Amino acid sequence: MIIDVCLSPVLYPKYHRPGSMVVIVDIFRATSTIIAAFENGVRSIRPVATIEEAEACKAAGYLVGAERNCCRCAFADFGNSPFDYRPELVNGKDIVFTTTNGTKAIHYAKSAYRIITGAFVNLQAVADECIRENCDVVILCAGWEDKINIEDTIFGGALIELLQPHGFHPAGDASLIALALWQQAKFNLPDYIKQTEHYSRLSANGLEDNVPYCLTLNLLKLVPVYSKVDNILQLTNPIPPVYPA
Amino acid sequence: MIIDVCLSPVLYPKYHRPGSMVVIVDIFRATSTIIAAFENGVRSIRPVATIEEAEACKAAGYLVGAERNCCRCAFADFGNSPFDYRPELVNGKDIVFTTTNGTKAIHYAKSAYRIITGAFVNLQAVADECIRENCDVVILCAGWEDKINIEDTIFGGALIELLQPHGFHPAGDASLIALALWQQAKFNLPDYIKQTEHYSRLSANGLEDNVPYCLTLNLLKLVPVYSKVDNILQLTNPIPPVYPA
Repeated sequence: MIIDVCLSPVLYPKYHRPGSMVVIVDIFRATSTIIAAFENGVRSIRPVATIEEAEACKAAGYLVGAERNCCRCAFADFGNSPFDYRPELVNGKDIVFTTTNGTKAIHYAKSAYRIITGAFVNLQAVADECIRENCDVVILCAGWEDKINIEDTIFGGALIELLQPHGFHPAGDASLIALALWQQAKFNLPDYIKQTEHYSRLSANGLEDNVPYCLTLNLLKLVPVYSKVDNILQLTNPIPPVYPA
Repeated sequence: MIIDVCLSPVLYPKYHRPGSMVVIVDIFRATSTIIAAFENGVRSIRPVATIEEAEACKAAGYLVGAERNCCRCAFADFGNSPFDYRPELVNGKDIVFTTTNGTKAIHYAKSAYRIITGAFVNLQAVADECIRENCDVVILCAGWEDKINIEDTIFGGALIELLQPHGFHPAGDASLIALALWQQAKFNLPDYIKQTEHYSRLSANGLEDNVPYCLTLNLLKLVPVYSKVDNILQLTNPIPPVYPA
C-alpha cells in the first residue's frame, strides 16, 4: 500500500487517490478536540464550513462549537479547545462544529473512499485503523488558512513511521519530507513545536495550556469517522454507554 | 526582511507579499537550464505556458526549447537539459521555452514586484541579488505538476541559510521546513537527492547525467530576471559580447 501526505487542503486534488482512506489532521486543534469530545461521550459531531451555518444550527437549538483565529465565537457553546468539551456538558450530545481550518479540510476530502480523523492523541489507534482497512492512505493536513504548517506535517511523518513495517510505502517527496521532519522532531516534540507559527498564535491568545495535551501520543483509542451520507463524525466502534459508578 | 518559501505554485496566492521579490526555482531542470543557457550567450528567453504557444513560435521561425514529462518535444530545437544549449547554437539568440513545471511557475508569480530565477548553479548570485534588492523574498518552488518536491524545497532552505546573516528572517513554518531539510541534505546532496521522485523520473529517461550539473553550487554568476513588460527573461547585468579568440 501507498501512504502519502498532502500538506495543504488546496493541494488535495493533486494527492487524491481513488479508493484511498483520508486521515484528516489538525493538531492545533480541531482533530485533537474532536477526538477528546468523543472520549467525553459526544454522540456525533457535524462539521460545518461557515460561521453562518453554525449560527443557524445554534438558532435551531443545537449545541455548537465554533472558533475563528484561535478564539471561541461569541454565539457558540464551545470553542476549539479539547478542555471545553467536558463530559457533564457533552455526554450523549450531538454537536455542530466549525473551526478555522480543520472542518474545512473535511469538506475538501469528500471524494475519498473513507475519511477518519487523526491527531497525536490517537496516533496508534489511527495506525491500527489503517492496517485494518489495508488500503492506500492519504494524510490531509489542515494547515493554517491553506498554508503549510509543521505540526500537521510531522504527524504525517509519525503515522508513516508506524505504518512502514506493515507494508505501507511513502508515495513520494511530500511523504519523505514529513517523515524526515518527524524523525528530527520526535526526540523533543514540545521544544520543536515552539518554533511554529501556530504555537505563537496560541501563546498570543493565552492558549499554551492546550499544547501539551495536543502533543500527547496515544492518550485515546478512539477514531472518529466521517459519514458522507449523514455529514457527521461518529465513532467506528462506539464506546459503551457510561453508567454511574 | 522576511524570506518565505512557497512549496507549490498552486499555493502562491497564499504566500504572495506585495513588494516582495520572487525567486522561481525548478532545480530539475528548468531554472538550472535557463541559467546555463544565459551562460552560453542566449540573449533572451520567452517562457510560454503551453505546447501550442511554443509550436506557434516555432512555426514563426523562433528557436524553441520544449519539454514535457522529462522528454524534448519532437518539434523543438532543444529540450530541458542544460547541455542542449551549446554556445555555438544559442549565442546571441532569442529562445522560446516551455517546460512541464518551471515556465508555468513564472506565470503564477506575475503579481510580484520582481521575478528572478534561481538554482543551485547560481545560488550565491541569487543571494547577492536579494541582499542588493534588500526587500522581502518569496522562493517559489515549481514542484512537479503542482505537487511538492524535495529538490526545490531544499534550494529554498539553502538560500535562507545564506540570507539569515544579512537580516532576512524565515517567515513561518514552510520556510522552517525548507531550512531543516537543507541542513539535513547539504552534507551529502547527491545521495539525498537519490530518494526523490524526480531523480527516479530522470533515471527512467536516461537523464541522470543532468543531475550532478544541477546540484553543483555556485558554478555560474548569472541571475536571469523576468521582465513583465516584455514577457522575457534576460540578464540583470548582461554578459559582455563574446569575440572570437
